[in-house]
Amino acid sequence: YGKNTIKFLRLKREGKKHFVKEVEVCTHLRLTSAHEYLEGNNAAVIPTDTIKNIVLVLAKKNGIQTIEQFAIDICKHFMTTFCQVAYVKTYVQEVPWQRLQENGVPHIHSFICVPEGIRFCEAEQCKNGPLVVFAGIKDLKLMKTTLSGFEGFHKSEHTTLPERNDRILCGELFCKWSYGECKDFDFDCIWYMNKVRECVIEAFSGPPDCGEYSPSYQKTVNSIQMLILSKVSQVPSFHAPRRALAHPCLGNDIDVFLCSSQVLIPVEAPYGSCTCTLGRKRFLAA
Amino acid sequence: YGKNTIKFLRLKREGKKHFVKEVEVCTHLRLTSAHEYLEGNNAAVIPTDTIKNIVLVLAKKNGIQTIEQFAIDICKHFMTTFCQVAYVKTYVQEVPWQRLQENGVPHIHSFICVPEGIRFCEAEQCKNGPLVVFAGIKDLKLMKTTLSGFEGFHKSEHTTLPERNDRILCGELFCKWSYGECKDFDFDCIWYMNKVRECVIEAFSGPPDCGEYSPSYQKTVNSIQMLILSKVSQVPSFHAPRRALAHPCLGNDIDVFLCSSQVLIPVEAPYGSCTCTLGRKRFLAA
Amino acid sequence: YGKNTIKFLRLKREGKKHFVKEVEVCTHLRLTSAHEYLEGNNAAVIPTDTIKNIVLVLAKKNGIQTIEQFAIDICKHFMTTFCQVAYVKTYVQEVPWQRLQENGVPHIHSFICVPEGIRFCEAEQCKNGPLVVFAGIKDLKLMKTTLSGFEGFHKSEHTTLPERNDRILCGELFCKWSYGECKDFDFDCIWYMNKVRECVIEAFSGPPDCGEYSPSYQKTVNSIQMLILSKVSQVPSFHAPRRALAHPCLGNDIDVFLCSSQVLIPVEAPYGSCTCTLGRKRFLAA
Amino acid sequence: YGKNTIKFLRLKREGKKHFVKEVEVCTHLRLTSAHEYLEGNNAAVIPTDTIKNIVLVLAKKNGIQTIEQFAIDICKHFMTTFCQVAYVKTYVQEVPWQRLQENGVPHIHSFICVPEGIRFCEAEQCKNGPLVVFAGIKDLKLMKTTLSGFEGFHKSEHTTLPERNDRILCGELFCKWSYGECKDFDFDCIWYMNKVRECVIEAFSGPPDCGEYSPSYQKTVNSIQMLILSKVSQVPSFHAPRRALAHPCLGNDIDVFLCSSQVLIPVEAPYGSCTCTLGRKRFLAA
Repeated sequence: YGKNTIKFLRLKREGKKHFVKEVEVCTHLRLTSAHEYLEGNNAAVIPTDTIKNIVLVLAKKNGIQTIEQFAIDICKHFMTTFCQVAYVKTYVQEVPWQRLQENGVPHIHSFICVPEGIRFCEAEQCKNGPLVVFAGIKDLKLMKTTLSGFEGFHKSEHTTLPERNDRILCGELFCKWSYGECKDFDFDCIWYMNKVRECVIEAFSGPPDCGEYSPSYQKTVNSIQMLILSKVSQVPSFHAPRRALAHPCLGNDIDVFLCSSQVLIPVEAPYGSCTCTLGRKRFLAA
Repeated sequence: YGKNTIKFLRLKREGKKHFVKEVEVCTHLRLTSAHEYLEGNNAAVIPTDTIKNIVLVLAKKNGIQTIEQFAIDICKHFMTTFCQVAYVKTYVQEVPWQRLQENGVPHIHSFICVPEGIRFCEAEQCKNGPLVVFAGIKDLKLMKTTLSGFEGFHKSEHTTLPERNDRILCGELFCKWSYGECKDFDFDCIWYMNKVRECVIEAFSGPPDCGEYSPSYQKTVNSIQMLILSKVSQVPSFHAPRRALAHPCLGNDIDVFLCSSQVLIPVEAPYGSCTCTLGRKRFLAA
Repeated sequence: YGKNTIKFLRLKREGKKHFVKEVEVCTHLRLTSAHEYLEGNNAAVIPTDTIKNIVLVLAKKNGIQTIEQFAIDICKHFMTTFCQVAYVKTYVQEVPWQRLQENGVPHIHSFICVPEGIRFCEAEQCKNGPLVVFAGIKDLKLMKTTLSGFEGFHKSEHTTLPERNDRILCGELFCKWSYGECKDFDFDCIWYMNKVRECVIEAFSGPPDCGEYSPSYQKTVNSIQMLILSKVSQVPSFHAPRRALAHPCLGNDIDVFLCSSQVLIPVEAPYGSCTCTLGRKRFLAA
Repeated sequence: YGKNTIKFLRLKREGKKHFVKEVEVCTHLRLTSAHEYLEGNNAAVIPTDTIKNIVLVLAKKNGIQTIEQFAIDICKHFMTTFCQVAYVKTYVQEVPWQRLQENGVPHIHSFICVPEGIRFCEAEQCKNGPLVVFAGIKDLKLMKTTLSGFEGFHKSEHTTLPERNDRILCGELFCKWSYGECKDFDFDCIWYMNKVRECVIEAFSGPPDCGEYSPSYQKTVNSIQMLILSKVSQVPSFHAPRRALAHPCLGNDIDVFLCSSQVLIPVEAPYGSCTCTLGRKRFLAA
C-alpha cells in the first residue's frame, strides 16, 4: 500500500534570488506482517497521512539536493525508522520549471514551465537488502522526418504493411536506467556533466548535418542505450566511482507514430510500442 | 513490443435480433532473438500492423464466445504460428453495452453503455510453458456511508490522522484472479453462475439490512477475496474441474476516498491505495 | 471570475437508512465594477474561497432537494446578498449513485456509481433580470446497430464518403433544455413523472420490436427534442403550470461514431459533431 | 455541425533541409436551411468527411504560411464554394515543434516538441459579413514566488481566506485577442516582431532584477492586456495598416494556484479562475 501522489513546491531564498523545486512523490510500502489484512488489526499500519507528513518533513529539513538523493532519503527513513517495513519504493519526478530570462538577464523570482522531457528517479529497498537507485527521462517528444525505414520484416498472409525506406519517425521517449546500489553520487553532476538528455537526443537524431539511418525503432532505442552507457561511464571528472553504471539495465519505451513519407500526413494515434532492455556485460572486466 | 490497443465491435445477427460485443485488445510479444534490436535485421519482426490484422481475423472467424476464450485463442495463434515468439500476453476488456429495454420489452438492435464495473481478462504463455488465464473486474465504484473505521494504527511523531470508528468508505475496486492453467472452461458460466460481480459487492457492503463493520480497507479487500474463493470453487454445476482456482492469486486494488463522517463532506482526490494478494494454500489437499 | 469546481457529498440519515447526494458545483460571478482589474482595488471582490464556503453552508442549511433548486438557491443568495454582483451563473451536476440491492432488498447504507447519463442543471441571473433555469442529461452513450443511414448529401470533387442506408449509429448524447423563468417547480417530479431520460432513449432507438429509421443524426436529434417537448408539456399531473417549457430552447449535441455496417468494425475516435436548436413556436396559442 | 479535430503534419523540403508544421484544425459550419434536421433531407449537408478532405487539400495546395492565413483560407473556401453555408468558424493550433540543435548547429531534419505556450487562432465569417480573425497563446505556465498579494477584498461572515501581501502566483495563461476584420497581414511578422509571447511573460513577471507587485491576478491580467495593446500597435515596420488592433477585445483566462508563501507548499488543484475583457476605446481617434 502507499501514498499515491504527493505534489509540493520547495522554495529556497538567497537574498532576493529565489530557487524552486516542484516534485511529485509516490511512496509504496510493504509490511512484514499481514494482521491488518487478515484480522483487521491495524497496529503495524503506517497511515498514508503519516507517510505524506514524513515526506514533507524530510523535504523541509534536508531540502531536495537532487531528486535521486531525496528518494534515497525517503527510503532510508522508512527502512530505519519502522521495523515493520519489509519493502519500500519511492518514485520522484520533477516539474520542469526554468528561470525566466528577459533579454538574457535571468529573473530573480519568476519561472516558466518547459516540459521538454521530465526527469524522474526511483529508489527501492527490501529489508536487509541493498538500496537500488534508478533514474530516467520521460515524455521527451522527438521527430525525424527522414532517414528512418522499416524493411525486411516477417511476412505472412495477414501482412498488409508495405516496406518503407523513408518514413517519419516520431515518438515520445521513455528512458530509464539503474545506478546500481546506492553510492554517494552527485546525481546532478552525473546528469549535467554527461549531458544525459543531449545523449538521448543525439542518438535519436544523428549528426546535425546529415542524420543517421534508423532501420527500425528497436535499433534506435539500442543506439540511445549504447550511447548513454559509453558516455556516462567514461567521463573522467565524474567525482564518482567508475561503477556508476556497473549494473545498468537500460529500459526504453518509444511510442511511435509511423506516418507515411508523403508531403502531407495525417497523424494517427500511436499504434505501436516497443520495450527493450540492454545489459552491460563484463563492464568492469580487467 | 506489441500492439497497444485494438478497439472493435463485433455484431452478430439472428434474424432481426442483433447482438454486439465491443472489446479492447492489447497484445504483447517477446521474440527469441534480438537481431532487429542489435543489428537492425527485421527478419523475425511481426509488424504491429500484422498483429492487428490477426486479432481482427480471429474475431471474424471464431467470434468472441467469451473474452477469456478470445484471449486464449489469440495467444495460441501467435505461439503456434510463429516459431520466433518467445512470450505472448493478451489483455481483453469489454465495453459494458446492455440491451435497451422499453417498459420491460428488450430492444432488438439498440444498446446502452452502463459502466458499473468493467470485466477484463488476460492470457499469457511462454514458449513451451503453460497458458495461464486471469480474469477480473475493474472501475467498480462503491460507497458505504457508515460501518467503516480505521483505528489502532501505528503512531509516531508525524501522525496527524485521528482515529475513527465511523467514516465513509468509497472506492473504485480493481479485482483480478487467476484461473490457473488454461482448461476448457465456460468462462461466462463461471462468471454468471457464481455471481462474481455480486460477490464483490456483497463482500464490500455486507447484509442489506445491517451492513458489516470494516476495520480497514485492507480487511475489506480480504473479505472480497475470501468470498470469491469460497463461492467460485463450490458451485457444483461448474462444468469444469474443481481446480478452477487451484492456483489463485487474487490481487485487489482499492482506491479510497476517506471522507470524514460528518453530514457535509468535501470529496477530495483519492489519497491512498492498497494492494493485497491472497494465496489459497493446500486448496485441494486430501 | 468564479469558483471552478466544488465537489462534495451530502449525507442524510433517517434512522439507520442513509441517503447520499454527491454533486459538482461551478459558480461564476461578474461584478458591477472593475476596480480590482483596472486599479488593483479588491474592495468588491468576493474571494473564491468565500464562494466555496457559501455553497457548502447552503448545502448544509437547506439540503439539496433537487439540483435545480440548489442552483436556484445559490444564484438567489449571491444576487440578494452582494450588491456588487452584476451576474451569477451556477452549474450543478450529480454523481449517479444508486442504492445497492441484494436479491431485491435495498441496502441501508451502501451505494454503487452507475454512470448511464449524468443529470445536470444551470441557473443564471443578471442584476434586476429574471432567474432562468436549464436542465439536461449528458454522457448518455447509446448505439443502434441498424436502421440508420446517411444518403442524398451534397457531393463535390472532395467527397469520398459513400452513401449508406444501413450503418451503426453510436453516440454520446448531450441534451439541454430551458425551463424558462424560475417557478416553484418540483423538478424531480418533472424529471421522473415525464420519464425524461426514457424519452431521450426511446426517441433514439424507436419501438423495441422494430426500431425506426434515422436518415441522419440531425434528424434523430430533432426526434429527441420533439418527443421531450410533447411529453413534458402534456403530463396533467404536473403539479406545475403548463408553462413549464414555455420558452424551451433544446440544444442537443451528439458525438457520432459512424462505423460501417459490416460484421466486424473497427471503432474510430468520434469524427463528427452536431448541435441543433429547436424553438417551440406558439406553444401557448389558444 | 462540423469536423471535430483534424490533425496533420505538413513537411516541406528545401534540398536536404526539412521544415515541419503540425496543426490541429476544427471547422464548424451552420447551414442556411434545416431540411436535414426537420425532414431528414440531406441534400445541403456537406459530410464531415468532405470537410476533412477539403482542409487537407488546402494544406497541400497552399501550404501553411501562418496558422492565421490557413484559417482564413479555409473560411473563405467554404463561404465562396458552398452557397448553403450561413456561417463558418475555423480554429487552428500549432504543435510547438522546434528544430533540434547539437552544440549550436541546427539539425537538418530532426525536431523536438517544446510546449511552453501553444499558439492558436480563429477565423469566423457569417454569410455576407466580414471575416474576423482572432489569435492567442494558451497553456503558458508561469510562476512568480513573491511580489504577489491579495488584500482588501470583500469580507462577510463566510470569509475564511486570510489577507496576504506575499504569496506565490502560479497560473496557466490563456490570452486571446482580435485582429479585427481580415487584412493582408503577415501574421508571423506581427507575432515575432512584436514579441507577443515575450510581452505576456514580461507583464506577468515584471523587470528581471526586481519584479513588480501584483495586487490580484485580475490586475496582472490587465497588465498583460495593456502591454500587448501598447506594443503591438506601435511597431512602425508593421507592413500592415495601423488598424491592426482597431477592434481589439482581449480576453484572458488565468488559472491560479494560490499557494501560501511559506517555504514548503503543497500544490493543490487550481481553485480559481478569472476572465477579463478589455476594449480599446477611441484607438483611432484624431
